[in-house]
Amino acid sequence: MIDLYTFATPNGRKVSIALEELKLPYTTHVVDISKGEQFKPEFLAINPNNKIPAIVDHDVPGGLKVFESGAILIYLAEKTGKLMPSDAVRKAEVLQWLMFQMGGVGPMFGQVNYFTRMAPQPVPLALERYRNESKRLLGVMNRHLSSHDYFAAEYSIADVALYPWVAAFKNVLPDAFASLSGVAQWLERVGARPAVQKGMKVPDIQR
Amino acid sequence: MIDLYTFATPNGRKVSIALEELKLPYTTHVVDISKGEQFKPEFLAINPNNKIPAIVDHDVPGGLKVFESGAILIYLAEKTGKLMPSDAVRKAEVLQWLMFQMGGVGPMFGQVNYFTRMAPQPVPLALERYRNESKRLLGVMNRHLSSHDYFAAEYSIADVALYPWVAAFKNVLPDAFASLSGVAQWLERVGARPAVQKGMKVPDIQR
Ligand SMILES: N[C@@H](CCC(=O)N[C@@H](CS)C(=O)NCC(=O)O)C(=O)O
Ligand SMILES: N[C@@H](CCC(=O)N[C@@H](CS)C(=O)NCC(=O)O)C(=O)O
Repeated sequence: MIDLYTFATPNGRKVSIALEELKLPYTTHVVDISKGEQFKPEFLAINPNNKIPAIVDHDVPGGLKVFESGAILIYLAEKTGKLMPSDAVRKAEVLQWLMFQMGGVGPMFGQVNYFTRMAPQPVPLALERYRNESKRLLGVMNRHLSSHDYFAAEYSIADVALYPWVAAFKNVLPDAFASLSGVAQWLERVGARPAVQKGMKVPDIQR
Repeated sequence: MIDLYTFATPNGRKVSIALEELKLPYTTHVVDISKGEQFKPEFLAINPNNKIPAIVDHDVPGGLKVFESGAILIYLAEKTGKLMPSDAVRKAEVLQWLMFQMGGVGPMFGQVNYFTRMAPQPVPLALERYRNESKRLLGVMNRHLSSHDYFAAEYSIADVALYPWVAAFKNVLPDAFASLSGVAQWLERVGARPAVQKGMKVPDIQR
């Protein structure tokens, strides 16, 4: 059994989608980051970086703690032998798009979010910087997805990592999405998967 | 033989350090991002996301292209069986700190850099946001390194990924480093490695 520590955010949903896809039994624990619960000592003992998501895999003797969504996705894929090929060449293809999410899409879309909805006052130069970089990233994805069904040769943890972020951004940057038919078709393709639909509803809370 | 496409930046140096540690023969190709060379069609064919670093591994028939430093590090570690344990539990520990670098330290230190040295005008709110988050990340690292020699049980690609970023930041946030003895000792320990010293000098250009 796996304990999932999460909240209703794209980074959390990457992991709930993966757990649903892999049919791994798990218990969801809500860490309400809007109330500072990520700073509680119990949680810091799991993730010293005070961020969701994190897991504890009790199938491993003593309980294995893993933080950082990208590390959790690789761990779960390798635990089950699914959602990532073991062949070095095809695996590298998955990992490069997973890292593109971790190092690019997540942080940059996250900054747009912050300067759109959370900053104490408008900071036009910062908002513009991150909107531009996010649009550029969407353009990179769209060019790729215009000739590929998924980021790698097959549906993988790269799609799982990117889906909740891109889906959430349809509302944040609606103008940017208008011309992105490759991205739009991929969103439909991935969003039609039952495991994705279930994972996107975790945790089951109202915000 | 591996072709390395890089520039004199922390993300590029992660890969040159790894190649030196692993004693893999490679040819360095400078992509001068200050002149926009990352947008040349030849380079976009290797990394559609127009960023260094990227590699082409000609040991793989046809030549395997990999972009994103984190994906390259995992690929090289698995190619050689070094700098990352194959055991699932110990590997997860390496991957979580590698992802901490990819999704946290790299993007956030990168924003401090931008708003300190490159922004067209001062943006105090943005600079403060990223300085604070970077100091928090340094604090997380310092607490960990106060009781550990390396990020995981042994020297790994997590240290390789973090070293060039943290080393570069000693000059950007000198005040934050004053009290970080765990980080300071780790910087010395890792910086004493001949492969690290060699990798940090790649590419051999004046900026
Ligand atoms: N790189 C991390 C990012 C995780 C992250 O940013 N989590 C946010 C919610 S989406 C969080 O917990 N923030 C609370 C905080 O930073 O205090 C990952 O992919 O797991
Ligand atoms: N997440 C990427 C980041 C790479 C990155 O930001 N590279 C910078 C230099 S350190 C770059 O090439 N920038 C040029 C550009 O964005 O046009 C990685 O780790 O490889």
